[in-house]
Amino acid sequence: MIRLFVSDTLEADVQIVPSRGQTHYLMNVMRLGVGDEVLLFNGRDGEWRARVAQASKRDCRLLVLVRERVQAVGPDLDLLVALVKRGRLETIVEKAAELGARRVRPVITERANADRANIARLAAIAIEAAEQTARMDAPEIFGVQSLESVLSGWSGVRRLMFCDEAGEAAPAAGALAGAASGPWSILIGPEGGFSPAERARIRALPGALPVSLGPRILRADTAAIAAMTLWQAVLGDWRGA
Amino acid sequence: MIRLFVSDTLEADVQIVPSRGQTHYLMNVMRLGVGDEVLLFNGRDGEWRARVAQASKRDCRLLVLVRERVQAVGPDLDLLVALVKRGRLETIVEKAAELGARRVRPVITERANADRANIARLAAIAIEAAEQTARMDAPEIFGVQSLESVLSGWSGVRRLMFCDEAGEAAPAAGALAGAASGPWSILIGPEGGFSPAERARIRALPGALPVSLGPRILRADTAAIAAMTLWQAVLGDWRGA
Repeated sequence: MIRLFVSDTLEADVQIVPSRGQTHYLMNVMRLGVGDEVLLFNGRDGEWRARVAQASKRDCRLLVLVRERVQAVGPDLDLLVALVKRGRLETIVEKAAELGARRVRPVITERANADRANIARLAAIAIEAAEQTARMDAPEIFGVQSLESVLSGWSGVRRLMFCDEAGEAAPAAGALAGAASGPWSILIGPEGGFSPAERARIRALPGALPVSLGPRILRADTAAIAAMTLWQAVLGDWRGA
Repeated sequence: MIRLFVSDTLEADVQIVPSRGQTHYLMNVMRLGVGDEVLLFNGRDGEWRARVAQASKRDCRLLVLVRERVQAVGPDLDLLVALVKRGRLETIVEKAAELGARRVRPVITERANADRANIARLAAIAIEAAEQTARMDAPEIFGVQSLESVLSGWSGVRRLMFCDEAGEAAPAAGALAGAASGPWSILIGPEGGFSPAERARIRALPGALPVSLGPRILRADTAAIAAMTLWQAVLGDWRGA
């Protein structure tokens, strides 16, 4: 069934007016009609079944019926990712939604491959990807910050999985297996890696866990996906019930 | 340094004529000149340093100098992947190269999202991605086969990591941790999943290990990357020296 993320409060008997893009999708792409059902979520109120109550080419109303699942959120996982080329950054956001990250925070590093990002577009990609998974929230996309502004004041309460492509670090799965769960961030560098000064800075942070992602050179999107996968498998919600 | 995959035999003092595409890349994109050096590999003879001996817009000769690394291949990992839409299949091939799969075998399943693939283009993508990792071979891309023709006669000598999105399977990392290394295949289904008959067929194979990739619905490319990552981390060459 089609799942849509909305910003409205969800409760029985309220009417929801989908956004213009959602209306186009429901009415003209999927060609739903009155009586067809969809699922709605907003990150707060769980997942609700709703019925198309009014349908025309440009106008659609959804009547919220019944809650199908109570709200649940995944583990507290941040993805800190250096600004890389637009297409790869968009892939990373899509995959962060599928792999259960709670936030994506683009950061500028010395060797970053870009100096800005279209946050609104990334947020839309995150929502669209979240709609296609079974999750009941969408990852929040932070505005671009410098790496230093993110790291300054890092207390260590949140652990940091530092994907250090310069080698020397322990294999990721084994290193994570010895660590505790709780709030974590994953840090992924740009295609050119971190500078020596950045590496030293990151490794000296409280709570930093440098890890290696195998013997081959990975593109930033591959590294991000691999790191989120290993984290979920070892410390996150892939461990099973 | 630039790395190029060539088909020629590599030994000291031979001259290599790069392909037309490689020549364009070296001469017009990277603007190399006589005396500049590159690395060459062919999947058989290790990695060799070579020097540009002749350079013009349309003509380039490379003189092979010295072997930098002896040939090594990664673990014997096959990726069996259902035909999905072209863009996602290309992503999967690129990532298979980065994540150290030895072969990619596109298969037609009941709910496959396509019925053919441009194998020559996929092979070119595999080579380009291999050039950008540190590996000394490129994944072989098999021609399209039906799932049944691949599974018939499956002896079980090669184990099969079956990514079963219908749930019920054990979490992948734990399941793999109890298994032996050796030759393995990973099987990834199409966006619509496997049919009940296919699932029963696969689960009954000798050597099949059904695994789950977490509680969210993953696109085929995400599932392929996650599965290869976990396999390399638990049974492959990400375990460290």
